[in-house]
Parts: sequence; structure tokens; C-alpha cells
Amino acid sequence: MASAANQRSNVERAASALAELTHDHEVVVTHGNGPQAGLLALQAEAFPDVPPYPLDVLGAEGEGMVGHMLELALRNRLPERDVVSVLTEVIVAGDDPAFHKPSKPIGPVYTAEEAQRLRLDRGWTLGHDGEGYRRLVPSPEPNAIAEIRSLRVLVDSGAQVICGGGGIPIALNGDGTLHGVEAVIDEDLTAALLARRLDADALVLLTDVDAVYRDWGDPNQRPIGSANPAALRGMHFASGSMGPKVEAACRFAATTGRRAAIGSLTNVVRVARGEAGTQVVAPVAEPAIGAARRHPRR
Amino acid sequence: MASAANQRSNVERAASALAELTHDHEVVVTHGNGPQAGLLALQAEAFPDVPPYPLDVLGAEGEGMVGHMLELALRNRLPERDVVSVLTEVIVAGDDPAFHKPSKPIGPVYTAEEAQRLRLDRGWTLGHDGEGYRRLVPSPEPNAIAEIRSLRVLVDSGAQVICGGGGIPIALNGDGTLHGVEAVIDEDLTAALLARRLDADALVLLTDVDAVYRDWGDPNQRPIGSANPAALRGMHFASGSMGPKVEAACRFAATTGRRAAIGSLTNVVRVARGEAGTQVVAPVAEPAIGAARRHPRR
Repeated sequence: MASAANQRSNVERAASALAELTHDHEVVVTHGNGPQAGLLALQAEAFPDVPPYPLDVLGAEGEGMVGHMLELALRNRLPERDVVSVLTEVIVAGDDPAFHKPSKPIGPVYTAEEAQRLRLDRGWTLGHDGEGYRRLVPSPEPNAIAEIRSLRVLVDSGAQVICGGGGIPIALNGDGTLHGVEAVIDEDLTAALLARRLDADALVLLTDVDAVYRDWGDPNQRPIGSANPAALRGMHFASGSMGPKVEAACRFAATTGRRAAIGSLTNVVRVARGEAGTQVVAPVAEPAIGAARRHPRR
Repeated sequence: MASAANQRSNVERAASALAELTHDHEVVVTHGNGPQAGLLALQAEAFPDVPPYPLDVLGAEGEGMVGHMLELALRNRLPERDVVSVLTEVIVAGDDPAFHKPSKPIGPVYTAEEAQRLRLDRGWTLGHDGEGYRRLVPSPEPNAIAEIRSLRVLVDSGAQVICGGGGIPIALNGDGTLHGVEAVIDEDLTAALLARRLDADALVLLTDVDAVYRDWGDPNQRPIGSANPAALRGMHFASGSMGPKVEAACRFAATTGRRAAIGSLTNVVRVARGEAGTQVVAPVAEPAIGAARRHPRR
């Protein structure tokens, strides 16, 4: 299980790269928190007399943890900026088919034997992840971001805004009220939605590989320098990792006509500039709308 | 240990009372999260191969949890408002004497025997709390709220803002950067600081008793209807519970000339109007500044 020190050092690395990016761009930061939600679930389950915490509550805890660490790390690198983390609740459909087909891996990797025990003891769904197994939970589509107007207000104020991961999943009841649901929303799909709603001129998805690869894992694997959504959607990518990133990039590029990029965190500035990573651009007749909207940092 | 359902029902009760208050006032909500930080600490410690999570990280998790629950409950009662929870980092002095004198109770209540074992096994400080014992942690003075400008921006935008508890404690390093510290800041003192910095016309501190009592626990106990800071500071109140509320109210009233009130959550509207609870008012020659600043809801 990840120690706090370990997580902090990952966050420091990310903040360092992101801070560099803010010299040329207004950046809204989002983060995943599947690993955190998974480990918080395990921690909570160590007390068998307390019913397991629902995933919306664990997601909120994870957002608090990662949001704080990122906020502090960014503030130390951008002392002149107002850095602020906003809890992000994301509305999903209560009848999303994903609720019947858990697909999002959370928490640690288990051996085959551990996985079988968890299936039997806890009724979890477990799926392959690399050499091992991880718990799978429902991952419904993000439909709307509950705090979107406040996020816009903060971005317009010049604050360095941090949003929480895939978001805390909530769904509508029949009476129009909202309730938390047992799910973990994909952070890349939420990032694409957020970028669209905030009229971002680009969506940059960062990971630990330098680009999207054709035939990943094959001796002939080749990085994809640039592609349009239709071409990318015709290829197959791993559902737990690169798949959602590619889909998020395609959605943003296809619906906005602006650029999405996927690449390595350590190379973020060049990825954002379009000089590295995989660039996803929808073919449009006019110049990309994004170009007109890009503004240098105030 | 508190279940999620239990916490949710407490939050629903609070949200119901607070929503009523928003009809007449612009309200910024803050909350405590000592119990949450304490239980998250216990959960994390169930994994002995992982070093204990530091209290700033646990505080951030607790803010995420309570912030989400409150946000959802308030949104359901105020569907026309933008409800937003902001992680609140609070700057304390790294050399605050409180670091050498743990005083803030967190987590569950233990028996004398359990308390003794925890002292020996974990090196915790434990102190009396009612019939039992609770873990005590350092509770330094809140000096500044890191996100204050963003909080002001959000309040001015008309959003229903929720801030996190006593705040995630951070302190300055010698080089001007900030780091998380092992502490839990008192939520009432942070609320007083926040109210001052946001130019609130009143500070309302809610609890489960209907007022501050003189000689609490004595057969002659009497509720205090109104008092000035000097008089209140001459009396003694329990350090873990009413003491910080009284001190917070006194600070706000004395430094701003405006009104602070302490009373029951279930009676919040009357407490806020000055018709119930304990009203703390500093004696000033002119009319209270607060009166001029009160604005009805837009």
C-alpha cells in the first residue's frame, strides 16, 4: 500500500512539471485518485464492525488527500498565485449500464490466489491488471460537473485551480435530488468534459509513457505522433490504462475542433506545445478554434 | 467508530438547519473534522507496514469526506445555488508552543485501560473526555487561510461556500516554502479568523447545547443570554468543547465590534437573529459595524 511519503514524492514530481507549464498557459489541473480510493476502502474495511464506506465517500477522501498534496506542492512552486482545490462532484446517470459491468481498476494489485479469496469473501469483481489482479468497480459516464460555475469563476479570477480526479460520483433521484453512488468515474473522461465546459484551448493528458503506441507490447510497437479521432477509434488500446485516455482525447478533439495531447508528465511542456507525445486533432476546414482562444498568462 | 450512514445523517440534520439560515443571510459554512481525522488515523494504522499518515493528510481526507457530504446535502436543499466545497489550508507557526502540549481531542473515546495501552504502544498523549479518554494532538493557532482570496471570489460570485473544518495545518519552512504539520487546528478559532477575513457581519458557532452555561454541570447551571468578551474570558469553560467556542466568539466580537453567537444547531435561525443562544457583543460607542454590512440574500 502506498505510503503518504511515496504519494507526496509522486505529487512533487507532477507539481514540478505542471508549474513549468503555467509559465505559458492558464492551466486547470485534475488528477486521478483510483489508487487512493482503493486503499482508503481497504483501510476502512479493517474495522469489520463498521459497514464499508461507499465509494463516493472514499472518492471524496481521496480528492481531499491528493488535492491537498498537489495544492501545497504547486503553491510552493507558484508563490505569487492563488492555488485552490475544489471538491468536484460529477453527475452520472443512475441507470448507466456501467453499474452492471464493473470495469475501473482501483486499489492494489493482488495475486491470483488473493483475487479468488476476495471474490469469495467480499463479493468483489476482480480483473487482470498486468501480471496480477485488481478490484474492478463501476465506471459510469461523467455527464455534468456540479461545481462548474464556481470553477469558471475561480479560473477567471486568475487562481490556479485544482479539480478532483474523476470526481465524486452522484446521481439524480426520481424527485430531482442527488445522492452519492458506488462508482469511480474515469479521470480522463471527466478531464475531457471539464476542458469542454471551461472552453479550454487544449486538453493535455499526462501519464508515464511518452506517447500512445500502436501495437503496444509487440516488438513492432510504434509511437503515434499525431492522429485524428476516427483513426484512433479504429485501433485497440488497453481498457484500464491507455484506452480511456485515447477516448477522452478523441471526444475533446471531435466535439471542440481543438487539440488534445497524450504524453509523458516529465515532458509536459513539449507535449502541450504539440512537439511531443501523441497529438489528437479533428480534421476541420477552418483554423482550430482553440488558436483564437489561447491567451498567454497574465 | 462512526459509520458513513451515521455521519451522513448528522450532516443532513446540519444541512437542513443551515439551508433555513440562507434565506435571510449569506452564509459561509465551516465544519469540524476532528472525529473524522481520528478515525481515518485508526483506519490507516490498521496496515502496520505503512507508516502512519501524517495529520495534515488525514485532515485533508476528513475535509474531503465531510465537505462532500455537506455539499450534497446543501445542494439538495438549495437547488438554485452553486454549492462548492473548497479545501482549506491554514498556516500555523512552526514553533507554536502547542506542538509541545497536545490538547485537541480527536477520534473515539477509550476506556482507561485502552488509553494506557495506547500510551505505551503508540506513544500517544491521551486525556480525559467525559467518562473516558481520547487521543490529544497539538492544536496550534490558525494564523492565515491560504485560499482566502479564492474564498472571497466565490462568496462574491453568490456561491454557497463550504470551507473545511479547522483547516489542513501547514507551516513555513526557513526558505519560505510550506509543509504539512502534525496537528489539528481548532475549527472554532479558524471560523473566527475566516469570519474576520471575509468581513462577515456575524459569527455563529453551532453545537448541540442551546447556549453557553455558567457553572455547567453544577445544579445551579444557568445559560448566558449575552455577555461581552471581557466578562466571558473571566469564566472557565471546558477546554475540549465550549472553551474554544467561547474564545473564538470573544476574538471575533472584540476585534471586529460585531456580534458572535453560540447556540444549538436546531435553533440556528433564532441564534443567528440574536434571539436565542449566547450572544457575544463587544461594548462599542457607535452602532455595531456589522449592522451596516448585513445584506439580504440576492
